[in-house]
Amino acid sequence: MASPFRTIWPTDDRFVEVIDQRFLPHEWVVVKLHTYQEAERAIKDMVVRGAPLIGATAAYGIYLAARECIEKNLNASFMDQAFEDMAKSRPTAVNLFWALNRMRLKLKDSLDLVADAWEEAQAIVEEDIETCRMIGVHGLPLIEAISEKKPGERVNILTHCNAGMLGCVEWGTVTSPIYQAKQKGIDVHVYVDETRPRNQGANLTSYELTRHDIPHTLIVDNAGGHLMQHGMVDLVIVGTDRTTRQGDVANKIGTYLKALAAYDNQIPFYVALPSTTLDLKIKDGLSEIPIEERDQNEVKYVIGKNSSGKIESVLICPETTQAVNHGFDVTPSRLVTGLITERGLCAPNEAAILTMFGDLA
Amino acid sequence: MASPFRTIWPTDDRFVEVIDQRFLPHEWVVVKLHTYQEAERAIKDMVVRGAPLIGATAAYGIYLAARECIEKNLNASFMDQAFEDMAKSRPTAVNLFWALNRMRLKLKDSLDLVADAWEEAQAIVEEDIETCRMIGVHGLPLIEAISEKKPGERVNILTHCNAGMLGCVEWGTVTSPIYQAKQKGIDVHVYVDETRPRNQGANLTSYELTRHDIPHTLIVDNAGGHLMQHGMVDLVIVGTDRTTRQGDVANKIGTYLKALAAYDNQIPFYVALPSTTLDLKIKDGLSEIPIEERDQNEVKYVIGKNSSGKIESVLICPETTQAVNHGFDVTPSRLVTGLITERGLCAPNEAAILTMFGDLA
Repeated sequence: MASPFRTIWPTDDRFVEVIDQRFLPHEWVVVKLHTYQEAERAIKDMVVRGAPLIGATAAYGIYLAARECIEKNLNASFMDQAFEDMAKSRPTAVNLFWALNRMRLKLKDSLDLVADAWEEAQAIVEEDIETCRMIGVHGLPLIEAISEKKPGERVNILTHCNAGMLGCVEWGTVTSPIYQAKQKGIDVHVYVDETRPRNQGANLTSYELTRHDIPHTLIVDNAGGHLMQHGMVDLVIVGTDRTTRQGDVANKIGTYLKALAAYDNQIPFYVALPSTTLDLKIKDGLSEIPIEERDQNEVKYVIGKNSSGKIESVLICPETTQAVNHGFDVTPSRLVTGLITERGLCAPNEAAILTMFGDLA
Repeated sequence: MASPFRTIWPTDDRFVEVIDQRFLPHEWVVVKLHTYQEAERAIKDMVVRGAPLIGATAAYGIYLAARECIEKNLNASFMDQAFEDMAKSRPTAVNLFWALNRMRLKLKDSLDLVADAWEEAQAIVEEDIETCRMIGVHGLPLIEAISEKKPGERVNILTHCNAGMLGCVEWGTVTSPIYQAKQKGIDVHVYVDETRPRNQGANLTSYELTRHDIPHTLIVDNAGGHLMQHGMVDLVIVGTDRTTRQGDVANKIGTYLKALAAYDNQIPFYVALPSTTLDLKIKDGLSEIPIEERDQNEVKYVIGKNSSGKIESVLICPETTQAVNHGFDVTPSRLVTGLITERGLCAPNEAAILTMFGDLA
């Protein structure tokens, strides 16, 4: 990478630091997390976001709770509360619950709560990096195949939201095959959906593609269908916050619309995910995945940098107008071409998913 | 209407005034147009927008040219230039060319250029009002039928962009059946797509629905698919800037995505239009309708009211990120349930359109 960095890292005094992603791309703000409540708040307020990074932050949050528990000689109910609060921080990304379960298992009967929590959180982070790298390894051939079919031409990839390194620890999920394609000298270009209401595409994906020197073009969320109708998109890759055992994909609101357009124009639509994002307990995404409803002001206001260089929020509708703000939608598996996972490409159906990931059930 | 007003009107001294819609909903700014170049600029800079209002403004623009031509004793090439410049102001809305042609016919061999231009521009405006009223008359039964099927419940209509009275002179196209339903006591509620990049939904549709006391909810452009999947939308009605003789519909970018979602969820998808928006010369919308490409800064910046009450533009991506800004997309007729016109409902196919509108060819 042009400028390697991570999205979450331990400090010398064994606390944790994260990038406050709400200020990107305009300001680089680092926040130190001292308590599990601060970690919980960071997830809830979207200081950190992206399913894998939410999982990593929750794991460190439990470590911070363990540390406080021991240092202040608190009883076990403090840890129970920490697990409970952390689980409520966001409802849709299943990696959160996966990371918490893993921490719970590790700490059950632990004789050294702090050391064990630290070790497990560190392990979760290191595994995420390797998982994302492997998603790139398995996704890269899709890009290579398109490139070979149109020699001398650019491969145009459309993505929604940010499933990049900023949503993970390093590499990202969607961006991992893109970064690896770039490293192999393939001419890749990315159409970046701005991804209202919070504009993670405009704010974050554009930012990290800029840092990695990947040619990209920002588009409004309305534009992808038109581009696909006119042959300007070769491949769609999106992330996911939860994928069911039949391959239904919950992801940032608007993903379903892009999947419909890709299907209508016979453009491959792939979902990049670590297996930690699979929820094998559930089958029908539309009825079984809880969809977070967030504050209406995220719709009514847009945040950006004003002409004086200050970050400011502007109202885009009458004050009295009400808005509704569902954070995610579900793309039915029938619209998904395939899943790009750390174990390889997987068809979006129950048989294929259980064959490849049955051991995780 | 709760607060009747028009979007364009003559002044006592026989110039023309329009609302500068770029400042809505935050400020009410009226602009007086003295020359055809000012009218052209008003169209180009989107002081006025919406296919029928563009047509009306162009007609008055030609009147202003005629007035200047006579007052300054200019030769006929001035009028030719006026027609030519006006035709270049925006490329997609066919009403512009319709209005210009009508003015040209009227002024051909005219013995009193100013009086004739004035009369024709006034006639175009009055006809637009009646046309929009009739669109409402023919669209109303669609809403009544839904209301009868779910007594005591709200009828939920989703719309994209602004095809309201602000895009016309009075009534609007999409909003005309909605306003008439409200007058008949039907409980209608509108989901308003914000409609990036220029946010005509958030800025204008929300504003005029507020003024007409119509319950509405602002949503991001990404949200419509999710709402439709969950049965929260009964009917989609959108406007159009140009509709071909086989019923392909050019409308604000993003319309195609909503049409796909409506089709996938078996929700009726109607297009409201005056027959002046039909372009019977062309058949295939995807290959034959020119799509305007606008300034990338409309994508990179969002305009709204800041906390000090000032209208401000904020940057939502890295400065160096490039954007692309196609203003419209084309929805193929296979995704359209029907056309709501001033002559009645029309199926979106060549036979039905030529049967109902063949006299306009």
